[in-house]
Amino acid sequence: MTSPAKMSARGIEDYLYEVFPQMLRGGTERPYRVVHAGGDAVRVRMPCTEYLVRPGGTVSGPAMMALADAAAYLLIFARLGRVPMAVTTNLNINFLRMPGAVDLIADAGFLKLGKRLAAMEITICRDGEDVPVSHATCTYSIPPDV
Amino acid sequence: MTSPAKMSARGIEDYLYEVFPQMLRGGTERPYRVVHAGGDAVRVRMPCTEYLVRPGGTVSGPAMMALADAAAYLLIFARLGRVPMAVTTNLNINFLRMPGAVDLIADAGFLKLGKRLAAMEITICRDGEDVPVSHATCTYSIPPDV
Amino acid sequence: MTSPAKMSARGIEDYLYEVFPQMLRGGTERPYRVVHAGGDAVRVRMPCTEYLVRPGGTVSGPAMMALADAAAYLLIFARLGRVPMAVTTNLNINFLRMPGAVDLIADAGFLKLGKRLAAMEITICRDGEDVPVSHATCTYSIPPDV
Amino acid sequence: MTSPAKMSARGIEDYLYEVFPQMLRGGTERPYRVVHAGGDAVRVRMPCTEYLVRPGGTVSGPAMMALADAAAYLLIFARLGRVPMAVTTNLNINFLRMPGAVDLIADAGFLKLGKRLAAMEITICRDGEDVPVSHATCTYSIPPDV
Repeated sequence: MTSPAKMSARGIEDYLYEVFPQMLRGGTERPYRVVHAGGDAVRVRMPCTEYLVRPGGTVSGPAMMALADAAAYLLIFARLGRVPMAVTTNLNINFLRMPGAVDLIADAGFLKLGKRLAAMEITICRDGEDVPVSHATCTYSIPPDV
Repeated sequence: MTSPAKMSARGIEDYLYEVFPQMLRGGTERPYRVVHAGGDAVRVRMPCTEYLVRPGGTVSGPAMMALADAAAYLLIFARLGRVPMAVTTNLNINFLRMPGAVDLIADAGFLKLGKRLAAMEITICRDGEDVPVSHATCTYSIPPDV
Repeated sequence: MTSPAKMSARGIEDYLYEVFPQMLRGGTERPYRVVHAGGDAVRVRMPCTEYLVRPGGTVSGPAMMALADAAAYLLIFARLGRVPMAVTTNLNINFLRMPGAVDLIADAGFLKLGKRLAAMEITICRDGEDVPVSHATCTYSIPPDV
Repeated sequence: MTSPAKMSARGIEDYLYEVFPQMLRGGTERPYRVVHAGGDAVRVRMPCTEYLVRPGGTVSGPAMMALADAAAYLLIFARLGRVPMAVTTNLNINFLRMPGAVDLIADAGFLKLGKRLAAMEITICRDGEDVPVSHATCTYSIPPDV
């Protein structure tokens, strides 16, 4: 059983940078691109740039944490619509393999969507592969007026 | 009982940007400043900049996750010396209060320092306050040749 | 691509109580029953008993944490064989819904199986349902002689 | 600044077994003893019994997870009074050292106490020592009528 989306892939991507313009690198470059968005799942691509790479020639842990958090935020938009004040309350991430300096794909889905809390799972893979390089769970608090 | 530091506060800060120059904003601005470093604890300041602020006028979750991870990385340098290939294997963070748009202070200490794994605790407060705005634990894998 | 199992469902269940007889309630009752075991996944049933139920008439959190940990331990046996000294280093669990006082089913799979560390994901549902009541990730340290 | 306790050490211990009698081993043996209780912190002892010991001759991971969860539950009683329906929503635990087969002491304190959520930190040590053998953070949901 699937749930309907309130916003499209293009809609949530545009909305992310509308409410959070500080994310744009150099004021224009979008760090996250929404590949797919439905009411139950979103897929986000993070193009690799020099900025993201840590010693060892691999995308950094903080870059993957930020990607996981952004994918979860975008999933909430896809399902519930414009909720900019949704805030992360907990994030747990396991770094499983060094991805190298490549584009990463994050798939986010709900573990639970309650009235006040959403629990989500995010799996991050190298573009074109299905072996996870990192795996996160996170909880968002949903503001009461949604 | 305290353990001796192998590197000074200034030494670990310089070394961080030497091995990880991508962290420098605009190529020169240091996002993290080491206030204090000992063999058992480091204190790091993250000056607030527009770049870090999310909707609601508060330092973003990813900015605090990156700060927690950086403080842990710096603590390993302080205790063990130059170990650029130490890598995070797990990070868990609870976001407790919205900090607002202010400088944040992260205090990192060891829960355990083993030969292969270091477990650390990081508490983040608003500058000048002692009520935590977020709290993280993380595990780093230490490369075998250290 | 699936990996071969070194031990059968019956084999890992018997082995669990052989090395860990304290788990048997009243010295004989098996709290966990292995429904299925392969090299990549195991399914474990925890029959509901009065002992597991907390205020509110629902299986307790600690009972679900112990189930998640046991399912992960059994998955390691299924894949690697007799490794009693594998030890949990981290467990993170989200409690999503109160299950009530019913039998629970835990499905465990690998996020990563390295030489020294195994990261696993465990999803717990009410028997006969596929909506998770809790979800855990955990890391086991594998002893070096395996 | 300390916060007043609503219930005493003896009061919260008695209340725990009143609402959760299934915890009593053999119907009478109290697995957790409250050593100290204040509005901001509780200390709980878990006497070692054969039942708690896993392969390797050390208190098991699930026993420490249950201890951490119980200490957090007791801390909520100490501060807020009789709230049996407080439920754990997340627990993260790092197992740092094998404790051996000894009595363990858990110290629980608040990271945050909000109206709906309490975040707590629990440190577990061998009796008489101050080196942590495990460290947990957990979140409880507080029912709305408190």
